[in-house]
Amino acid sequence: MVQDSLIVVALGGNAISRENEEGNVNQQFANSRRTAVALADLIFSGHRLVITHGNGPQIGNFLVRNEAAAGVIYALPMEVAVAHVQGGMGFMIGQTLTNELARRGRKDIVTTIVTTILLDAEDPSFKNPTKPIGRVMDQADAQRFGWNEGWSMKEVSPGKFRRVVPSPMPRQIMELSTISRCVEAGDIIITCGGGGIPVIRDREHGLRGTAAVIDKDLASALLARELRAKTLMILTAVDRVAINFGKPGQRELERMTVVEARRWMAEGQFPAGSMGPKVQAAIEFVEHSSNEKAEAVIGPLDHAADALAGKIGTRMTRT
Amino acid sequence: MVQDSLIVVALGGNAISRENEEGNVNQQFANSRRTAVALADLIFSGHRLVITHGNGPQIGNFLVRNEAAAGVIYALPMEVAVAHVQGGMGFMIGQTLTNELARRGRKDIVTTIVTTILLDAEDPSFKNPTKPIGRVMDQADAQRFGWNEGWSMKEVSPGKFRRVVPSPMPRQIMELSTISRCVEAGDIIITCGGGGIPVIRDREHGLRGTAAVIDKDLASALLARELRAKTLMILTAVDRVAINFGKPGQRELERMTVVEARRWMAEGQFPAGSMGPKVQAAIEFVEHSSNEKAEAVIGPLDHAADALAGKIGTRMTRT
Repeated sequence: MVQDSLIVVALGGNAISRENEEGNVNQQFANSRRTAVALADLIFSGHRLVITHGNGPQIGNFLVRNEAAAGVIYALPMEVAVAHVQGGMGFMIGQTLTNELARRGRKDIVTTIVTTILLDAEDPSFKNPTKPIGRVMDQADAQRFGWNEGWSMKEVSPGKFRRVVPSPMPRQIMELSTISRCVEAGDIIITCGGGGIPVIRDREHGLRGTAAVIDKDLASALLARELRAKTLMILTAVDRVAINFGKPGQRELERMTVVEARRWMAEGQFPAGSMGPKVQAAIEFVEHSSNEKAEAVIGPLDHAADALAGKIGTRMTRT
Repeated sequence: MVQDSLIVVALGGNAISRENEEGNVNQQFANSRRTAVALADLIFSGHRLVITHGNGPQIGNFLVRNEAAAGVIYALPMEVAVAHVQGGMGFMIGQTLTNELARRGRKDIVTTIVTTILLDAEDPSFKNPTKPIGRVMDQADAQRFGWNEGWSMKEVSPGKFRRVVPSPMPRQIMELSTISRCVEAGDIIITCGGGGIPVIRDREHGLRGTAAVIDKDLASALLARELRAKTLMILTAVDRVAINFGKPGQRELERMTVVEARRWMAEGQFPAGSMGPKVQAAIEFVEHSSNEKAEAVIGPLDHAADALAGKIGTRMTRT
């Protein structure tokens, strides 16, 4: 069934953690309450939502906590940390949106499903990990926490190192049938937190976790495709995607087609560390969706309903 | 609809953490794999399962990690920690059971739903917290981590302190309709991890988390009642519930009625720290279930299918 009122909303880091904050739990809840207002606006504009979210600052803090406790208590490996953070962030986002909806007279209980995503064990990124996670370390810490643990460490500046992990393409959302059933029934579901818990299939054991970071926008694109949602919304801090950013001829885009997006991607218009993965995810969804009306919107979290209405943000369509 | 093939299985601490182990993640996964064999045996005996679990050792370790990182990174409050651990343990239990079922030719994806449980803000236990959590502290640490944070601390031996939190009765499983729909559709669901994330309703904000520990067996009894399951299985380390335990006239019970159980409870036969809450939960379920065939089984995890079949364990029925 085509789901024309269904939006997969991918929340960026700014939905929960703002710049110039420590990012503690009270601040995260406060930000989450603001985010809930934007999400409720989307629901009250007549749409059904499935919510995904990043976990960058939270997983980073989780790993810092791991390290600070080294020697006192066992560490939790990367994928187990992702699973933990799905629970913690899902609780927070779910509770604040449930409360916001209740304030406006709705009785939904926004519910989090712990989500694992299958990767291809042969994905080239396993041989060439590039995604930095956790803090920058000096040589001694890089030895103690990094090389000693078998991590890949990258020298980010002279004598300074940071862990890098693979960032493979998401292949299959393992809990999809449950997620899909809940969405069909009208539940508001939080899923694919942090891009999903990365698992591979292993001949001997079956599924098992692996240290990787799945891009949350690519995971959201896969989810939107599988659910046959009409819209993938990638909410972030910027008003619009731009070309020639910071250069003469800078232009903020109201609309683009997949073909234009591909061309601009090839030109290097969208940097890998920021807008690139969002545009890539939008392309993945709009191009491959079986819903002909498929569209992606990249726009500002604080004006999500306006972005959906086309007043702000950038909309990508097939033609 | 009465659910006569449906079992709510409550996993005790020994399902994931064994005595004489550090309890690190590899050990937890190894134990979880053994538990998965027992759970798969129940499924292959023709039953549908909903799985709940405790979190004692894990939440304790989580709090130790919090403390070890104090001054380096913000702490996660109790209820947020419970939410995290639901994600982490749900991932682990779900993955190991999914793999065990796959090994036997089934394709289920065992799925975790992050679960909040509403408490009565007037529950008397909020005025008299008694449930010990986290480690034993000397006076200095009790000041630093405890009283300074507004915790209730109990002197457990001269000069030694431990945090105590309320353990209120679970009142409402907030995500019940989603859980119920998934169970009806045949999904194997993990829910109410650690007894559920404790929340209260607050006039100003709506739902909000609170520092408490909900007994996982009482939460499981409430779940079993709401789902109209026939059976509540409380899996633990002992073969049978006993009366006159460690005294002359010790008797291991194969069966008991609710009336007998109540009488023995009143006599103090079942200690508060061990068998008491399990028998209490069994009574809550068998007595109040709208399923007339309601039964509770308390038995050994390693022989769960035998316990269900009545070969071991203690079975409680209404009459």
